[in-house]
Amino acid sequence: MAKQPKELTDLFHETLKDIYYAEKQILRALPRMAKNAQSEELRQAFEQHRSETEGQIERLDKVFDLIGKAPRGKTCDAIVGIIEECKEVMEDFSGSAALDAGILAAAQAVEHYEISRYGTLRTWAQQLGLEEAADLLSQTLEEEKRTDALLSKLATGQVNAKAA
Amino acid sequence: MAKQPKELTDLFHETLKDIYYAEKQILRALPRMAKNAQSEELRQAFEQHRSETEGQIERLDKVFDLIGKAPRGKTCDAIVGIIEECKEVMEDFSGSAALDAGILAAAQAVEHYEISRYGTLRTWAQQLGLEEAADLLSQTLEEEKRTDALLSKLATGQVNAKAA
Repeated sequence: MAKQPKELTDLFHETLKDIYYAEKQILRALPRMAKNAQSEELRQAFEQHRSETEGQIERLDKVFDLIGKAPRGKTCDAIVGIIEECKEVMEDFSGSAALDAGILAAAQAVEHYEISRYGTLRTWAQQLGLEEAADLLSQTLEEEKRTDALLSKLATGQVNAKAA
Repeated sequence: MAKQPKELTDLFHETLKDIYYAEKQILRALPRMAKNAQSEELRQAFEQHRSETEGQIERLDKVFDLIGKAPRGKTCDAIVGIIEECKEVMEDFSGSAALDAGILAAAQAVEHYEISRYGTLRTWAQQLGLEEAADLLSQTLEEEKRTDALLSKLATGQVNAKAA
């Protein structure tokens, strides 16, 4: 059977699998980040984001359904790398006053990866005329932006002041 | 010799090495991305960003100098993963009308990683009273944000329309 030429719909599906895998990895990483966080505010931010992440995975399930595909992830090297860096900082700065600043920075790298992916997927969904999918992806995009803003607020507040 | 407790200044230095390595990898990846881009506008955007990246590396050299350290990178797993994903999309979508959309999305993932890192480093430089370093990092942060906005503009414009 001749290989079909790949189109935007294939790219959309591949990228959906990428972020699906990423979200599942983030869901697994967040409890460890919460456990390592020294500040109560940061710990709470991670716990809140954990339940948000569950909702984001459910939205992705719906998007897979809307394009008639089974929800399935594929290894996302980017998120693997970002989470690896987070683990390194948690080990290297264990017991340090700068630990929270390091975990927080890693969490913001995670958020920015997600912001870029959801922004891209939302634009593609619109181009493909997948209005309902675009709406679901927009909801998650806005959540990720709010989480990033909250982390920035914590970063410029007590966390870094304590570390310095 | 007893190990000194790690502080924010160490975290700043480690993260500076991370983004220094990342920028050098990006500098190497951009010509390949430009070569693969089908749209002239996208190719030009990558070429312009390549010369900007050279300037950003020079700013990092200055920041290393300001903290009395030699400019040196350390492997950044995150950027390795992001660039790996970009290579995959260039191979998998070679000859496809969606190729530019894929390269563009990868480039935005790169930009968002940089935005998160420079945002973090700028905040830490301010906390550490490194005003000149904070100013240099701010300049690069604004450049990265402008590049991301330009890529978003291209993404919502002709590139995706062509792919769909």
